[in-house]
Order: sequence, then C-alpha cells, then structure tokens
Amino acid sequence: MIEYYLENVRKEKPLVHNITNYVTANDCANIILASGALPIMGDDVNEVEEITSICKSLNINIGTLNSRSLESMILAGKTANKLDIPIVFDPVGVGVSKFRIEFAKDLIDRISFSVIRGNISEIKKLSGLPCASNGVDASELDKTDDYNLDTVIENLKSFSEKIGAVIAVTGVIDIVCDNKTVYVIRNGNKMMEDVTGTGCQLSSLISAYIAANRNDIVGATAAAVCSMGLAGEIAYKNLSENDGNSTYRNRIIDAIYNMSVNQLIDGAKYEMR
Amino acid sequence: MIEYYLENVRKEKPLVHNITNYVTANDCANIILASGALPIMGDDVNEVEEITSICKSLNINIGTLNSRSLESMILAGKTANKLDIPIVFDPVGVGVSKFRIEFAKDLIDRISFSVIRGNISEIKKLSGLPCASNGVDASELDKTDDYNLDTVIENLKSFSEKIGAVIAVTGVIDIVCDNKTVYVIRNGNKMMEDVTGTGCQLSSLISAYIAANRNDIVGATAAAVCSMGLAGEIAYKNLSENDGNSTYRNRIIDAIYNMSVNQLIDGAKYEMR
Amino acid sequence: MIEYYLENVRKEKPLVHNITNYVTANDCANIILASGALPIMGDDVNEVEEITSICKSLNINIGTLNSRSLESMILAGKTANKLDIPIVFDPVGVGVSKFRIEFAKDLIDRISFSVIRGNISEIKKLSGLPCASNGVDASELDKTDDYNLDTVIENLKSFSEKIGAVIAVTGVIDIVCDNKTVYVIRNGNKMMEDVTGTGCQLSSLISAYIAANRNDIVGATAAAVCSMGLAGEIAYKNLSENDGNSTYRNRIIDAIYNMSVNQLIDGAKYEMR
Repeated sequence: MIEYYLENVRKEKPLVHNITNYVTANDCANIILASGALPIMGDDVNEVEEITSICKSLNINIGTLNSRSLESMILAGKTANKLDIPIVFDPVGVGVSKFRIEFAKDLIDRISFSVIRGNISEIKKLSGLPCASNGVDASELDKTDDYNLDTVIENLKSFSEKIGAVIAVTGVIDIVCDNKTVYVIRNGNKMMEDVTGTGCQLSSLISAYIAANRNDIVGATAAAVCSMGLAGEIAYKNLSENDGNSTYRNRIIDAIYNMSVNQLIDGAKYEMR
Repeated sequence: MIEYYLENVRKEKPLVHNITNYVTANDCANIILASGALPIMGDDVNEVEEITSICKSLNINIGTLNSRSLESMILAGKTANKLDIPIVFDPVGVGVSKFRIEFAKDLIDRISFSVIRGNISEIKKLSGLPCASNGVDASELDKTDDYNLDTVIENLKSFSEKIGAVIAVTGVIDIVCDNKTVYVIRNGNKMMEDVTGTGCQLSSLISAYIAANRNDIVGATAAAVCSMGLAGEIAYKNLSENDGNSTYRNRIIDAIYNMSVNQLIDGAKYEMR
Repeated sequence: MIEYYLENVRKEKPLVHNITNYVTANDCANIILASGALPIMGDDVNEVEEITSICKSLNINIGTLNSRSLESMILAGKTANKLDIPIVFDPVGVGVSKFRIEFAKDLIDRISFSVIRGNISEIKKLSGLPCASNGVDASELDKTDDYNLDTVIENLKSFSEKIGAVIAVTGVIDIVCDNKTVYVIRNGNKMMEDVTGTGCQLSSLISAYIAANRNDIVGATAAAVCSMGLAGEIAYKNLSENDGNSTYRNRIIDAIYNMSVNQLIDGAKYEMR
C-alpha cells in the first residue's frame, strides 16, 4: 500500500512551488528531484501567485523569514487556497522570536494548510501547548517517547481538528495524524540531526507526495515521512570509514533517488492507530 | 582547437561577477573555481557597479529574481556594457510569470549581452516564438531533435542577429550560434536533469570561458557547453552502485575540476554548420 | 592542551547565530554541526536581537551584504555586546566596494568584536595598511611568508590592540593574535582555495569554538584555525582518483565531524610567539 504514494510521485512528476530559506534551498530542490517531482523556488511578491497557480503543491518554510518573503508567503498561500492546491507549512524555529510565532499564527488563521510539519517543540509552540524549548531543535524535555506517546497523539489530533491540517511531528518517533487517522513511524537515524535541513528536506518531500496523492493527504504524508527516515537508514549503511555529516547529506538524497518500491515496502516501520 | 579555450581559462583565472539565485549560488561558485576562474557574488545595488568593473565577465541569472536584485542586474549590466565586459544572461524559468518575462525583455532592450543561455522553452519564450511550456523545464513539445533541428537553428540565428548575442540552447542536442557560426553539440547525460541548477552552472562556466576568450565568444561558449556535457558523461561513469543525484552533482563539478585537455579533445562531440 | 577547546565545543553544544551570505550558508551550518555545535541563521531585522540573545556567539559575514542584512548585523551586534556574547566578524571581500569597506569600518567603530578573521588582503584593507588587492582572494603581493612574517605579526598585534579583537589571518601561514599572544599556524592544503567559502566556514567554526571557550578567545580561535587546516589535510588524503573540489568540500566538513582528540593533538602545527 505505502508504495502506491511513491509510484504516483514518479508517474505524475508534479511541479512543487517552494518559498523557503536560503540555507537549505539547494537540498530541498535536489530532494524534490530525487523523488521524481520538479521544484520551482521563486519568492518575489510580483510573481508568486502566478507560480503557485501552475504548481501542484506549495511548500512554505520560515527558516530565514523576512519582511519581503513574508508577504509572498501570504499571497502564494491565498492563491493555493483559491485554486485548491495543497500546502505544506514548515514552522522552522517558530519559537525563536515574536516575529516568527506571530507570523506563523497569523498564517494559520488566514491560510488553510494541508500539512504542518515540525519537530515536537515547534508544533507545541505553534499549538499553544507548554513547550520547553524556543530554539530550532527539539528540546530533550519535549521529546516524544513510548511513555508520553498517547498523550502526545491526543494533543496532535486535537490540534489537527482545530486547524484542519494533517500534523507531522518528526523526532525519534514520528507521528503523522489528522483528527481520525494516526501513523506512528519508527524510521530514521540519529545522525540525521547532524545534517542541516533534513527537516526542510522532509517538508519538500511531503509537498511532492501530497501533490501526487491528493485523495489521501494523511497517507501520502506518512509515506513521505517513512521514505525520509528509511533514506536516513540506508544512507547510514552506505557510509564509509571517513565519511561525516556532509557526505551523509548527499547519501540521504541519493537514497531517495534510488529508493525502490521493495525497499520502501520492506523498510517502512509504521503502525496505524 | 577546443582545448585552447579551456587552457585560457586556467591561464588567465578571470574574476567572474555573478548576480544569481540563492538556490544554486554555491554550485555556481564551485564550478567557476573548478574551471580555474574565480567567482564573486555581490548583488547589492550599492556595490554591483564597482564589483562588475573589476571583473572580466558578468553572469546574470533570474532564478530567484526579486525587486532588489532586479535593479542591481540593470546597474551591473550597464557598467559591463560601458566597460566592454562580456555578459551572460540566463533567463531561468522566464515563462513562469509576467514579472520575469517583462523584466527579461526589458533587460534585453537595455543591455547588450554577449551570450544568452537557456533551455529551448526559455529561449522560445524570450524570442517570441510559439512555446509549449511556461515552466522551468523544457517542454517535450519544445525539444530539439534531428527532425526539427534545421528549423530551430534558423530561428536561433535570426534571434541572435536581432539581439546581437550568441545564443546557447541546451537540451538533448545543444546548439550554440551567432548569426553566422553554428555549433551542434551532442554531449551530456540525461541524469543531469535530475540535479538542480546544471543550467545555472553552465551559464557560470560560460562566463568563465568567455572572460578568458574575448576574441571568440561563440567558440568559447561552445567549448564551455562541450565541457559541461562531457563532465556530465564522465561523472555518470564515475558513479557507484548507491550513488544518486546528490553525489552526481558533486561528480559533475569534480569532472570540470579534473578535466584534461586530452579528455576534452577526445570527448567533445560537436559539429560546425 | 589544544584538544581542550574541541572537547568543550562537543560538551557544551553551543547555539551559534550566523548572519551570513547565501552562497555558503549551507556549508557554514553543516560545519557548525560537524564541530558539535548548533547553528541558527535568521537575518531579519525583526528578529535578530531575540535570536542573538538566546545564542552563545554571533557570526557576522558580509559576503553578500545588502541594505537589509546590514541593519540586522548592527542590531545583532549591539545585542551581543550588551549581553556579553562573543562576536566573530568575517569581512569577506571588504576591498571590492566602498559600500563594504565603509560598512565594515562603521561596524568596527560601533560594535566590539571578539575575533576578526580574513585573508591578509582583507585584514590589510580593514586595518588601513597598504594593500595590493581589492578582490575576494588574497593577492600574491600581500601574502605572508617567512621573510615578512615578523613585520606582519607586528602590524596585526597593533591592529588587535587598537580595536580590542583577536585577529585571525589565514593563508599559507595562518596567524592568530591579540596584542600579546601570537599563534603561527602551518596547517592546511592549497586545494582549500578551490572550494568556495572555506574562509566563511572557518569563521563559523571559530564562532563555535569561542562560544564554548569564553575564557580564552585567542586560544580557542587558534584551535579552530588548526582544526580547519588539519581537516583540509585529512580531506586531501581521503580523496580518490576522480575527486575534485566539490567532493573535497564534503571531505573537509566530514573531517571536522570525525576529528578525534588525538588527530588534533598529533596534527596541529602551531607555535606560540
């Protein structure tokens, strides 16, 4: 079943509009290409509406949010809503400043998102739950484990119901849910934390997956999360003695590029609740 | 003969000014270094005129065009024209928005370019020919093949004559021409489409080649196009079992770095018409 | 002794705020992660003060300086000074335009830096010494060698005394000094010049090192410079036959990631004067 989503991306080759940060934009474009989809990255207020309108999905990422891109995100988001184009929102480091959290909350009020993906600290911050971290990385205190899993899921389901978007939280345990369906995913490798932008890359990958699987956003998101985690595992196995985080970065994208349907079927570690 | 252009780049180590997009800027800088030239990337309106004036060529790329960089491109272009510094223009995704096509046409009116490089859809859009695609990648319907090659060449020669620039169109078959000389080039590998910014990288490489070969812009451009395509072939041969598009990206730049004169002589597949 | 600084970075995992250029931002983030520290890159005027205030150091790099980031640099710098957070300044290509040199001098007047790192041409330009180059790379005429080493050191010590910052000059011979302590460092590999942004990466690495070694800024800076040069040597040894500058880029960051305390002790080539 999970392979169905992957095959659709490769068959449909959807064009994905990314308004993202300049730190990881290159990796985001390359992982979209690796998945079989096509990226476009224009972010100027004078053209984002037209670009979104020719795309199959939109990916909004606030990693280097600025007063210029902010306006473009709103315009592109409104266009996507009007044309029923699905949107992924990645609230990178949303807790680091009033500027980010206020913009993110405003965006959620004004734009209807299909998927919101972040680490647990970002999602807690965004949803108004008590949160131990205000930084870019998930705090140890916020992390999901088997002891607090049920509570975390209940909170995420409520948040999903409230805003009408699939919520994807990534960490040691990943959770993808809407208000009914829940995927608990245990793919991934700890070394992924040592590569900048693996979260941004995943949000781009989800954008490709939902663009080609409009009829099942929660399933497509879960498939993308499994693929990314599995790519992290495969990439880790492919490392040689002197390889570090920079080579690992390449190997993750390479693994997405080469992922076979059988690899995904055999390697995806998820349960539905 | 073709090796002459490569040797000049390595001998002269020209400084190349790039006003380009943030998605592929790092790869553009590294491929310029790989060729033996030196990159500089400043894009602020307060300094582009000074930077262009100390460089041997200018590379303008509208991949993430914005209202700020737009003005810088015009100022840098005017400076280059005044000082007789050759300019490459890469109209990335020129068909995706009115903003891009209007800016690109305005730029062509106001600035005299040495080379314009794009895929066939971009060049058709820019030259006003009927065009099947408005996206960033060349449409299948637009592609050059052996059946329509003569017609495409005639159109490109006319466009070149009209605007006074060498035209370089890349795809399965690459064409480089002015209004008299035509190079048909058959280097390259299909996997290059799976790496973001191989087109941007080629435009940067052309900028390095023409900077060091002022007396033969069309020949230097053709040599750069052969080098890039050949690098794509060599890089493909150097891939191992689990390598994908991210490693391929590195291998292409590596192949430019290591390209020997004999490799280029033996590997360049071009004919002049 | 030198291993002490490295161990502190890995133990403390400091968060480093970077306001840097879009060409090398990804490499800067990945080398900070490779060192064991954590990067954050926000550059908007609406949030830099808050971001700096939760970080352990600030890294300011003017490689693609613009009128927007300029203001953010000043605000972040003032915040860092107020909160006694150490700041690294990388005056990339400071001689290429009046805009850069005037901004850089103004910044030095208004902000108290812990470390200024550049090539010898950049530091000469900034300190007002006669300088042969105005470009981004150090001019041959400016380079430090064993014949002019004593003079260069005296000039750097004076400049350090004048502005109250540790000065780090990198080239074939690296010098790190304040007005009393001088480190002369002979690590590195010539091929590092063929990778864009190894200087930017080093400044990011220094930011990580000084964040975790507040009590000895000059020693921590020297340790970071040794680490980077040594990583260049290790990476060079790890190259295979067809590898070029793009793979070398990855290998340098990989070497920082994998650097053992013993490698650093055995490989660091420095003398104190």
